[in-house]
Amino acid sequence: MTNTLPVTLDDVRDAAARLKGVAHRTPVLRSRTLDALAGAEVLVKCENLQRVGAFKFRGAYNAISRLAPERLARGIVTYSSGNHAQAVALAARELGSSAVIVMPEDAPRSKREAAAGYGAEIVTYDRYTGDRVAVGEALAAERGLALIPPYEHPHVIAGQGTAALELVEEVGELDALLVPVGGGGLIAGSATAAKGLLPGVRVIGVEPEAGDDTKRSLAAGERVRIPVPRTIADGQAAEIPGELTFSINKHLVDDVVLVSDEEIGQAMRMAFERMKTVVEPSGATPLAALLAGRLAGWLAEGPERPPRRIGVILSGGNVDARRFAELCAH
Amino acid sequence: MTNTLPVTLDDVRDAAARLKGVAHRTPVLRSRTLDALAGAEVLVKCENLQRVGAFKFRGAYNAISRLAPERLARGIVTYSSGNHAQAVALAARELGSSAVIVMPEDAPRSKREAAAGYGAEIVTYDRYTGDRVAVGEALAAERGLALIPPYEHPHVIAGQGTAALELVEEVGELDALLVPVGGGGLIAGSATAAKGLLPGVRVIGVEPEAGDDTKRSLAAGERVRIPVPRTIADGQAAEIPGELTFSINKHLVDDVVLVSDEEIGQAMRMAFERMKTVVEPSGATPLAALLAGRLAGWLAEGPERPPRRIGVILSGGNVDARRFAELCAH
Repeated sequence: MTNTLPVTLDDVRDAAARLKGVAHRTPVLRSRTLDALAGAEVLVKCENLQRVGAFKFRGAYNAISRLAPERLARGIVTYSSGNHAQAVALAARELGSSAVIVMPEDAPRSKREAAAGYGAEIVTYDRYTGDRVAVGEALAAERGLALIPPYEHPHVIAGQGTAALELVEEVGELDALLVPVGGGGLIAGSATAAKGLLPGVRVIGVEPEAGDDTKRSLAAGERVRIPVPRTIADGQAAEIPGELTFSINKHLVDDVVLVSDEEIGQAMRMAFERMKTVVEPSGATPLAALLAGRLAGWLAEGPERPPRRIGVILSGGNVDARRFAELCAH
Repeated sequence: MTNTLPVTLDDVRDAAARLKGVAHRTPVLRSRTLDALAGAEVLVKCENLQRVGAFKFRGAYNAISRLAPERLARGIVTYSSGNHAQAVALAARELGSSAVIVMPEDAPRSKREAAAGYGAEIVTYDRYTGDRVAVGEALAAERGLALIPPYEHPHVIAGQGTAALELVEEVGELDALLVPVGGGGLIAGSATAAKGLLPGVRVIGVEPEAGDDTKRSLAAGERVRIPVPRTIADGQAAEIPGELTFSINKHLVDDVVLVSDEEIGQAMRMAFERMKTVVEPSGATPLAALLAGRLAGWLAEGPERPPRRIGVILSGGNVDARRFAELCAH
């Protein structure tokens, strides 16, 4: 199956070769407390310790590094007010290119400053009247920039898959891999890598309750649009799965489970207090699924067997101290 | 010098052999942001990821593991309301022994529950009228328990030194090692290990401004008592250095620098936001010293030389989310 899809295990391996020495090979964290709470052996791939604080650097760098020198010289454009913005800004700088980031006028100053801090030019639009994709495409056409979207791009997806590739290389056999789902790029790449290496692994996505577009789409067999999600998991506020990502995920994702914002906050707090690590809301959704027992039925199957081995992609850690306090320190 | 002191590099090596497979070999974290802020190459030994969330497990386990079987069978006693309490409780359990922990009546419930969660018996005293050392010694005499104090014990000191031993084994040459100073056990063990392996390394202690007993004592050439320190760095609120620890530190510690509570809070926040790691106030004092420029004069010497390589013992991460929010999320 995986060989006939638009992204293959070989594409992920090629991306890993490009990222070597550029992206961090992030550590895999174990926690006795988490294992006890989850009722499983949990292996946590810490992409909160990746450059720019999230897995997004992997996909952005892989995609930009494949551009021809003359395109690199003209520069890159993308639309994002989240981690992909910083990832494109840093990757462009590292590759001797330049980046233009399209953000809404009311994006938090910290996000603008983070991207500008890597040397990017920020172009704003009114998100009530404008369309970020149209603004990005217009800039690409006018200035001859290469558009690197957040997930609808095979090289971005292949890059995101390198975290799961490293995890499986390091820990070996897994019964399941839990991955946050926003636009679907991370789980598409992760599933490609994990199922390519471990044909029997279950790949389970995790969405916030309000942002269940991929769960609904998998059930319907086609992309379903939902109202704009209201959730603390800002990296997972997609209204509809990507066309490219869904064409992969409908074949490779076994299930999607949902977690509430309150469960996400509790998972962030558990990670802080017991694992001593900082996780942003979207990154905490797989931990929340484990702690809230969303996999309990499956974990409980067969009492005679050894504990399930579950990999988790902890996707990012970009939450400032004040926001963390608001979300879960009460 | 180091061979004539009460704890030697060989003692630290023996402790490391006992801790193998029991204590975590904690990771060494690097951060480009921290390097840029410090103006040096900084290598952070993450004892916040140690068992019980702090280096204290190393010394407690080493000391308890050396007891004869008949003493182990009778049990352990210590006095501590901090990380040493949990460390003794867990180490005793791991070694098939039992622990009694002497804590003030008004110790936070979370601290009592943490030690009790590892199976320890909690004995309380009134800290305005009582003396924890006397209570501990009386229990030891009455019940035949082995007293394992928080720092005045050569096996405890040797155990604490294993974090620095691992750091130097992993990263090699260092220009300086920064270590928090409370009673002095961590820095005594760290200095023994670091100077044993790297004779030219500078060992620099960091104390909170209000708790500068070791700095004053080193200046006076003898142990100086100060008023009970008021500081957010609760692990460093010692009034006077230990006798045993000071007999080592007066020979091996090159300098002690001071940081304010506000600087400690800023360092905790920087570690959270930029390094994605959770540090308790005492553990953040070396980072605070770097960020506040307390080593600036020394770092600035010789503009032609490569950046200084500085090791940091990040001693612990036991701060709950609410306390973190109070201290630094504003």
